[in-house]
Amino acid sequence: MTDLLKTIDDPKDLRELSRDQLPKLAAELREFLVDSVAKTGGHLSSNLGTVELTVALHYVFQTPYDRLIWDVGHQSYPHKILTGRRERMDTLRQYGGISGFPRRSESEYDTFGTAHSSTSISAAIGMALGARAQGEKRVAVAVIGDGAMSAGMAFEALNNGGIHKDLPLVVVLNDNDMSISPAVGALNRYLARLMSGRFYAATKKGLDSVLSMAPPLREFAKRLEEHAKGMVVPGTIFEEFGFNYIGPIDGHDLDSLVPTLQNVRRLALDGEGPQFLHVVTKKGQGYKLAEADPILYHGPGKFDPAQGINTAKPSAPSKKTFTQIFGEWLCDMAEADKRLVAVTPAMREGSGLVEFEARFPDRYFDVGIAEQHAVTFAGGLACEGMKPVVAIYSTFLQRGYDQLIHDVALQDLPVVFAMDRSGLVGADGATHAGAYDIPYLRCIPNMLLMAPADEAECRDLLTTAFKQNHPSAVRYPRGAGVGAVVSKELKELPLGKAEIRRSTPGLQGKKVAILAFGTLLYPALEVAPDFDATVVNMRFIKPLDVDLVCKMAQEHDLIVTLEEGAVGGGAGSACLEALSVAGIQVPTLVLGLPDRFVDHGDHALLMKECGLDAAGIRKAIAEKLGIPAKQQAA
Amino acid sequence: MTDLLKTIDDPKDLRELSRDQLPKLAAELREFLVDSVAKTGGHLSSNLGTVELTVALHYVFQTPYDRLIWDVGHQSYPHKILTGRRERMDTLRQYGGISGFPRRSESEYDTFGTAHSSTSISAAIGMALGARAQGEKRVAVAVIGDGAMSAGMAFEALNNGGIHKDLPLVVVLNDNDMSISPAVGALNRYLARLMSGRFYAATKKGLDSVLSMAPPLREFAKRLEEHAKGMVVPGTIFEEFGFNYIGPIDGHDLDSLVPTLQNVRRLALDGEGPQFLHVVTKKGQGYKLAEADPILYHGPGKFDPAQGINTAKPSAPSKKTFTQIFGEWLCDMAEADKRLVAVTPAMREGSGLVEFEARFPDRYFDVGIAEQHAVTFAGGLACEGMKPVVAIYSTFLQRGYDQLIHDVALQDLPVVFAMDRSGLVGADGATHAGAYDIPYLRCIPNMLLMAPADEAECRDLLTTAFKQNHPSAVRYPRGAGVGAVVSKELKELPLGKAEIRRSTPGLQGKKVAILAFGTLLYPALEVAPDFDATVVNMRFIKPLDVDLVCKMAQEHDLIVTLEEGAVGGGAGSACLEALSVAGIQVPTLVLGLPDRFVDHGDHALLMKECGLDAAGIRKAIAEKLGIPAKQQAA
Repeated sequence: MTDLLKTIDDPKDLRELSRDQLPKLAAELREFLVDSVAKTGGHLSSNLGTVELTVALHYVFQTPYDRLIWDVGHQSYPHKILTGRRERMDTLRQYGGISGFPRRSESEYDTFGTAHSSTSISAAIGMALGARAQGEKRVAVAVIGDGAMSAGMAFEALNNGGIHKDLPLVVVLNDNDMSISPAVGALNRYLARLMSGRFYAATKKGLDSVLSMAPPLREFAKRLEEHAKGMVVPGTIFEEFGFNYIGPIDGHDLDSLVPTLQNVRRLALDGEGPQFLHVVTKKGQGYKLAEADPILYHGPGKFDPAQGINTAKPSAPSKKTFTQIFGEWLCDMAEADKRLVAVTPAMREGSGLVEFEARFPDRYFDVGIAEQHAVTFAGGLACEGMKPVVAIYSTFLQRGYDQLIHDVALQDLPVVFAMDRSGLVGADGATHAGAYDIPYLRCIPNMLLMAPADEAECRDLLTTAFKQNHPSAVRYPRGAGVGAVVSKELKELPLGKAEIRRSTPGLQGKKVAILAFGTLLYPALEVAPDFDATVVNMRFIKPLDVDLVCKMAQEHDLIVTLEEGAVGGGAGSACLEALSVAGIQVPTLVLGLPDRFVDHGDHALLMKECGLDAAGIRKAIAEKLGIPAKQQAA
Repeated sequence: MTDLLKTIDDPKDLRELSRDQLPKLAAELREFLVDSVAKTGGHLSSNLGTVELTVALHYVFQTPYDRLIWDVGHQSYPHKILTGRRERMDTLRQYGGISGFPRRSESEYDTFGTAHSSTSISAAIGMALGARAQGEKRVAVAVIGDGAMSAGMAFEALNNGGIHKDLPLVVVLNDNDMSISPAVGALNRYLARLMSGRFYAATKKGLDSVLSMAPPLREFAKRLEEHAKGMVVPGTIFEEFGFNYIGPIDGHDLDSLVPTLQNVRRLALDGEGPQFLHVVTKKGQGYKLAEADPILYHGPGKFDPAQGINTAKPSAPSKKTFTQIFGEWLCDMAEADKRLVAVTPAMREGSGLVEFEARFPDRYFDVGIAEQHAVTFAGGLACEGMKPVVAIYSTFLQRGYDQLIHDVALQDLPVVFAMDRSGLVGADGATHAGAYDIPYLRCIPNMLLMAPADEAECRDLLTTAFKQNHPSAVRYPRGAGVGAVVSKELKELPLGKAEIRRSTPGLQGKKVAILAFGTLLYPALEVAPDFDATVVNMRFIKPLDVDLVCKMAQEHDLIVTLEEGAVGGGAGSACLEALSVAGIQVPTLVLGLPDRFVDHGDHALLMKECGLDAAGIRKAIAEKLGIPAKQQAA
């Protein structure tokens, strides 16, 4: 069933096919895709939606000479399959395997690494201008979803791209979101209105038959086409921005896609300026289970393609994730304090807000993929006496960083940032790692920063943060913790106070104190008996429990700090600063994430690689003490 | 000549005036403004442009109950004068005086602190929703310039605001930029097209006379107005975003402004949803010298209002600023390497790019106020083999932080960030302080980070950064340095190598080494003889010269680090980390900016306040050594 697909080891092979072979190739590609994702897990719905589009893009554009940039990139699996990585799809998102996103280091067809949304148009403009400066006649193509289009960055790029009158730039809007989430922005509604008059695709088909029959008529057809377009959609906002708007066309109809893309490419190369092609696709297309529930099939784990995902509850209840703990806390806190409102930049499911939205719809604000707006909007709410909780991934808060500093922290507004996915994130890899939030937040005046060791403490620290009249952030990791029992209470912990979790006389050998930030408390407790070490659960990065840090330094021969975050400027560094101020000299060992981007892979494996599992911590301490680690481990 | 203005100590007084008194008040306000800014320096052109708009807004809206938010806020001087701060205008932007931007702590009329652009609509939406949650019937009004509208954040807010059908939200677009800078975005051109049919203002006047004569006719007039509007501009992009677009109207004609704003306020309160009023103003309006050269009068120092700014060259040549050093280097480097391209987010003058643009127009990219796009766009250019230099203020790079991490550093692309205004910035105050770039950049893998001690080294380090095949940032301060002689060479310094600037036997008392990052080298050299201290010019924050730091620690009794940046996670902290890794215990003194937002004021004064002038450094070292500072100073 994959006879044709097997022959495609490179888009050049694809371009050897005749037009009428393409639907068969697309069908094979779709089948391969479902089988592949069923084995590895990964993104499915979005990739099913881009099968025909991917085939058509590589068929028409001279990749990799023409530059193809996949916005977000989680829909790039068909692209990976067609660009020589078919056989490696079984390693997708696994340690040492290929990435779930485009990566420049992986293939010359991955012209720009993506993963965070809305970067593609900016990159494409840069590439198009860079190519022009070097006299290259290539087209830069950005493929961007309607969700990603709601981010300000995409608008900045459109606004800037539109002024370059003759730039060989193509933006393909992959519009697939109409049926899934409620529209959170005016743009979505606008796109829906554009789609309400869908006869351009039919016109295109007519044009195409003209083109294929009589090449000399091309110029005439082009003029006709532009005239026709003018009549169909008299002035879209994309045209106001200087783009030539074409569409909407059916993104699953190769007979529309191929000739339209051919026209678009020709227009771009002929100096007709930036082109904007509006393509309508359906998430999950061609796999009935995914069509029926594209959210369930958005990013599944392994499943049986014939049976679909088993949604029955597992018999043994699995541990709750930190995300779930947050979602439950949010509902309970909202019951207790009617000033609480929740803000999310398009992460209802990922951030655990489904129940909150259902129970408190008037206090739930999904602002779309718009982190900058989300943060300042929360600041505005706080000015009026509300208590906003911004649910955001650590990696995405990077996009609201200036707003956090300038609009929230500087005005000392009580906004709580519930930072999910702090630390390493596993299969999503370096692009999504929440590795930098400690350095980038603790340098900001007025900010409070907390790191719970487990689920129970996560709830307590969220309450603690919420009770402060200052900006605060609680960082917690992806997935589950140790499974600590979570009470229903809303308990506030003493601000800036750490907790000694293991206290020993420290009589055997050198006295070691381990200061653990966040979930690394548990490997610390595991390692501690080997060194008869004191273990402190630090809880607060800012304000740091300076008194306890100094006391530990005075009473021990070695201070070890542990954090799942970049060591440069991190929590351990904060301890060193405190000791410097206090004038205490003591040997220190600062353990955290290394100063390199950590690739995707199983979280436990990555932590081991970074020396942050119990064995790695044990080894590091033993080395620092100058004693063999094995002896200690015994 | 300020008889009327003197009676306005609060907008309530203003609202007591009759409509026909307003033009006189505006004239007095304009005169007061010119005199005031001539005495203190500050922003002038933009404030001259908002005189009538400010009068009309406070006349029509029930401030402070209605919320008025000034985007950027440098045009808020008339607002300050009318809201009880007239007598304090002579302290503007001075130490201990009122801020040059709106500040919540300064007045209840400053409902949201601004300074960075494009935040106002987000804040206003938050305020409007917050008020609604509490049953308050107030209007939130954001006043935003056309330049600020080009930032993605404003688009995110428009996109989100437009879906709230009955929100009492008003966006006033203060469109004043048509005649000054070349349009850098499609939006500017679009606004210009909207203005080409300027008869709405005239229609408004007609409506107004109807209204004032016959109140019962209001409803009819409203319908007529909406009908008329529909005819004039059949569908603006703002309407596509769900706003009711009204305009453009003449922003200096109080007879247009007042009735239109009255209508707008009524529509907003009547549940007619978000309103968008397009007002056209002229920068410098009413002061002929500023009208003729609004850029010269954008942010002048003190001047004689009758004579205007003295543009004659001062007889004694003043020292060049770091900005000028950068601008000259950029041109020289561009001559030497044709791959160099320069990117600026709307900061041609501020970043020293005027000459570069004139000489290399094809290699100059002003992308508008769009920091996110600027950074990723530069990444795209780098992918094609260009060598982009992004000229950006430290404080504004905060807005491209995620793009720097995700699009540039992760892909290890050779983009140079020339970070102007690092450290404290003087009169602009806390909002513009470049205090956080060391912590927020040094935690990012692949990044190189450099801090020149003076002008000559700034040029050398820019060359050094440019020669690397990695992302790099050179941080330099606002204003001039010590006046070091700058060669015309393009000299590369050894990467990661510090320089010993003062070496002594250190025989008197305890041996002190001062590790200075950036321009604090000079106060360090001034202080050093008092302690017979070694002084190291560190040059590189990353890679840090770890070997030299360790050597200094081994050979001295006290290590002092100096930086004009936040101490939390800063360069001194990097030294502590290096010593921790090396296992060296030595007393340390980490000096830098304190963990609080530092207000506006003279730079030297602020540095003194922060203990970072020579006297402060001397005192801190003496205290650390336990010896009286005076003795050392003698």
